[in-house]
Amino acid sequence: ITHWVLTLVCADGPGIVHAISGAVVAAGGNITESQQFSSADTGRFFMRLQVETTTGREEFESALRPVTERYDMTWQLDVVGRPLRTLVLASTAAHCLNDLLFRQRAGQLPVEIPLVLSNHGTLRDLAGFYGVPFESIPVTDAASKALFEERVVQAVEEHTIELVVLARYMQILSPELCERLSGRAINIHHSFLPGFKGANPYKQAHARGVKLIGATAHFVTSDLDEGPIIEQNVVRVDHSRSASELVAIGQDEESRTLTQAVKWFAEDRVLLDGARTIIFR
Amino acid sequence: ITHWVLTLVCADGPGIVHAISGAVVAAGGNITESQQFSSADTGRFFMRLQVETTTGREEFESALRPVTERYDMTWQLDVVGRPLRTLVLASTAAHCLNDLLFRQRAGQLPVEIPLVLSNHGTLRDLAGFYGVPFESIPVTDAASKALFEERVVQAVEEHTIELVVLARYMQILSPELCERLSGRAINIHHSFLPGFKGANPYKQAHARGVKLIGATAHFVTSDLDEGPIIEQNVVRVDHSRSASELVAIGQDEESRTLTQAVKWFAEDRVLLDGARTIIFR
Amino acid sequence: ITHWVLTLVCADGPGIVHAISGAVVAAGGNITESQQFSSADTGRFFMRLQVETTTGREEFESALRPVTERYDMTWQLDVVGRPLRTLVLASTAAHCLNDLLFRQRAGQLPVEIPLVLSNHGTLRDLAGFYGVPFESIPVTDAASKALFEERVVQAVEEHTIELVVLARYMQILSPELCERLSGRAINIHHSFLPGFKGANPYKQAHARGVKLIGATAHFVTSDLDEGPIIEQNVVRVDHSRSASELVAIGQDEESRTLTQAVKWFAEDRVLLDGARTIIFR
Amino acid sequence: ITHWVLTLVCADGPGIVHAISGAVVAAGGNITESQQFSSADTGRFFMRLQVETTTGREEFESALRPVTERYDMTWQLDVVGRPLRTLVLASTAAHCLNDLLFRQRAGQLPVEIPLVLSNHGTLRDLAGFYGVPFESIPVTDAASKALFEERVVQAVEEHTIELVVLARYMQILSPELCERLSGRAINIHHSFLPGFKGANPYKQAHARGVKLIGATAHFVTSDLDEGPIIEQNVVRVDHSRSASELVAIGQDEESRTLTQAVKWFAEDRVLLDGARTIIFR
Repeated sequence: ITHWVLTLVCADGPGIVHAISGAVVAAGGNITESQQFSSADTGRFFMRLQVETTTGREEFESALRPVTERYDMTWQLDVVGRPLRTLVLASTAAHCLNDLLFRQRAGQLPVEIPLVLSNHGTLRDLAGFYGVPFESIPVTDAASKALFEERVVQAVEEHTIELVVLARYMQILSPELCERLSGRAINIHHSFLPGFKGANPYKQAHARGVKLIGATAHFVTSDLDEGPIIEQNVVRVDHSRSASELVAIGQDEESRTLTQAVKWFAEDRVLLDGARTIIFR
Repeated sequence: ITHWVLTLVCADGPGIVHAISGAVVAAGGNITESQQFSSADTGRFFMRLQVETTTGREEFESALRPVTERYDMTWQLDVVGRPLRTLVLASTAAHCLNDLLFRQRAGQLPVEIPLVLSNHGTLRDLAGFYGVPFESIPVTDAASKALFEERVVQAVEEHTIELVVLARYMQILSPELCERLSGRAINIHHSFLPGFKGANPYKQAHARGVKLIGATAHFVTSDLDEGPIIEQNVVRVDHSRSASELVAIGQDEESRTLTQAVKWFAEDRVLLDGARTIIFR
Repeated sequence: ITHWVLTLVCADGPGIVHAISGAVVAAGGNITESQQFSSADTGRFFMRLQVETTTGREEFESALRPVTERYDMTWQLDVVGRPLRTLVLASTAAHCLNDLLFRQRAGQLPVEIPLVLSNHGTLRDLAGFYGVPFESIPVTDAASKALFEERVVQAVEEHTIELVVLARYMQILSPELCERLSGRAINIHHSFLPGFKGANPYKQAHARGVKLIGATAHFVTSDLDEGPIIEQNVVRVDHSRSASELVAIGQDEESRTLTQAVKWFAEDRVLLDGARTIIFR
Repeated sequence: ITHWVLTLVCADGPGIVHAISGAVVAAGGNITESQQFSSADTGRFFMRLQVETTTGREEFESALRPVTERYDMTWQLDVVGRPLRTLVLASTAAHCLNDLLFRQRAGQLPVEIPLVLSNHGTLRDLAGFYGVPFESIPVTDAASKALFEERVVQAVEEHTIELVVLARYMQILSPELCERLSGRAINIHHSFLPGFKGANPYKQAHARGVKLIGATAHFVTSDLDEGPIIEQNVVRVDHSRSASELVAIGQDEESRTLTQAVKWFAEDRVLLDGARTIIFR
């Protein structure tokens, strides 16, 4: 028996659920989880199903095809729990990478990480402890940046990467790379976003005496820090916290927010509806 | 066009979604919201649909009947947003009643309240301000308690009451009345439940120096404070709070937790799965 | 016996606590609560004391004066629990005003409200239920706006107002009025601030698919929505919430955030440190 | 210049703050942080000061002694940021140990860990990665349990241990060891405490359909899971989570709650007031 996860998106209209559930029945499947959403904003219909069948992939796809074609669906069929091939980019901060690797090993995060790529060597030992290959390419100017990004593109192909995670990777990706990775690269942004933009947001937050600080995980787009939001968390702070304490507090939020976003993405729970995400938790 | 809400429960198995969605199609309906859950604990299948049709109730029910009968479903068809006929029981504390009445008037809570019944006269003016009839029957002994409960039963019939809300009603209901109101009476319990039981939980919580206090809204059962949980909230406190400050803080959690539970129930979002609730938010 | 609250601010340096506590001892006082903070940003020292004495105000002030003069302190001596004379400005939205009035009556908010002033008549009955005088002055153009603000200034003097609360008052105050009320006017801002600015932030928040929405209570300054932050709260939302549902959810955060800020201010727990607030909870 | 942290506890009464601040002035000290609390429950006065002086320890203690003797104070003078010598007990679950070690190395947790002691070998590599000595002693019967506890006692003396952390150590300590470690051993308890007791609380929580699960860090006492509470956290869950998912979610709360409690203890922010803790955050 196989446990499938099926996601699909199409223009909204009557009869879709009936048609899809009919195809599932035809394939001898039993729906174990089902979520759907009709977007009033874009008129799109979104669905995520988990289905148990004894049917093979080909047969299941044949049963689905008449429906997916009739409704002109964008769809994807995957096996529940299959580890997503994930490339992690990092710089020197360890907290996000540590959380990803620890949870991956603990069996809480369905990803496999064939490579960590960094513009510094700082995190080599951490990756090594978890048995994950690590490469560092210094980024100091336009040429070395181009070199780094070439290696990203190459690694994505070499390892058939499905998701690129920027785990506090402190370089801005070129518009070309953003475009190429569109919808499959996740960034974590310290502070609260939208909110303080530009350099040193914790210092700005401290100066304004904010009472809440947090983190936002979002898809990478060429419009810096403006991609569709996947997850946000905040935590309460008070006037007695220095800017550097805010950083430490914020890092906890960054780790758990990024890991949560990666987990949902790896479980096919994140769908795009224009500038918004649909999260089927 | 009518916007229906359909809830149904049956033994889990393949084909249910297809059958139900087929009946919806047959009735010319369009599914606008759909949630389902298969309980691994009890083997039950739960579904909540919102459906837009131009069909009348009779015709819609005819389309559904073959499916509901085949799968031996418990089901209910209602109109989205129809105010639920709600009886509120209260004593002297105003915070829960005030929140219910304010939100009802503000259009945030789809209930109508034909009567507030209390064992004290304290809240008469508050009910009056919102134009809600108010009766008080003192409860001082077994006889007067029986009288009060008789009035509850009578009011439930007289006003075709669908939900009884114990908004800090400080008397224990008799097992007979609990039984009679089973699945349609909601209580709010201060403190954290399960947790400190019996008298003065805030004092107990203070003495133990708890760092979180909260409230639980649950269905009324004859087993005191042990009914299926609908909603819980907590808030952080510290050592500097006196027991009476904990009470004030806790009351905020009580109000918002009870109102939330009533809102979900009124929107047909609360289903029972043995000792647990399924909440289709 | 009197329970005093003493707040003081001065340039930081050694010996201040010893000097102040000496003055308290000299006045026969017993410190029941004490909080202090040294701002690394501004070099200011902040202190809030609660002191029990049998001494009268004059005698207590005499004991304090040598110290407050030596350290060039800004200070204030008040009686714990004295209701703060508070003017509320409102428009048509009831949620904030209702929360303030309900808690004031419930004894949870140490304010007295001699007047609610509105640019609409909508909330007259609500104020009336709580026995609070209500006046409405339509604001439709520059002239009527000037009239409204004149009435504010007049009411502040007439009732010796200590705090002006903008409880969803939907007009922008003139820079002159902001200046005049500086440090004693609190506004509540929907959405998350800093964050989406300008018109219809909930719609913007919806379009970006934010996962958290909230409210910020801040001092009124002429720089719109940029005054020192007193309190912030957020609540989790998901893609299924419409913009209007976000508004309803946000209103809950607005009410509780504003009431909390007013409570702290009325208890002399809010001190200004440049663009930041020190909150002695 | 040295940055001291001074904590003291005595019977409450007038003049204490003045006397202590006088001693600080006499020692040429400048108070940089100060918190105090008078317990209405026990009549005890609690204070935590951070003081900068150029004075040595002996001289500072001499300045304090007249005051600490006059008021019969329990007191402690330490250097801010000095790493606390900490022994960690663990079993097989890695999440708490990982979080402690990662944050210790990241400079966020002022402890030094000379030894991890476990009844299993599972976590040897994790400790090794962080360069922390690891010993395992199987506990299978009364005799081996006695052996394990003897090693604990010995290690406490050998390494002058100041804090013992039970990082999901799954054995119950003997009453004798609890007694011996009283006030310097911290345990983390899954689930919500007080709440479900005994075996498999997550399963119980699942069966009751709780909407919040969490963790409590508390001092170890011989009364199992009933020691003074240091910190608590909760997170929201819903009906769709299986018992094993609740475990994973709960582990996150366990890690962060335990680490927070250890941090506060290591910073001398946790004082005991009968069955309660005073936390000077």
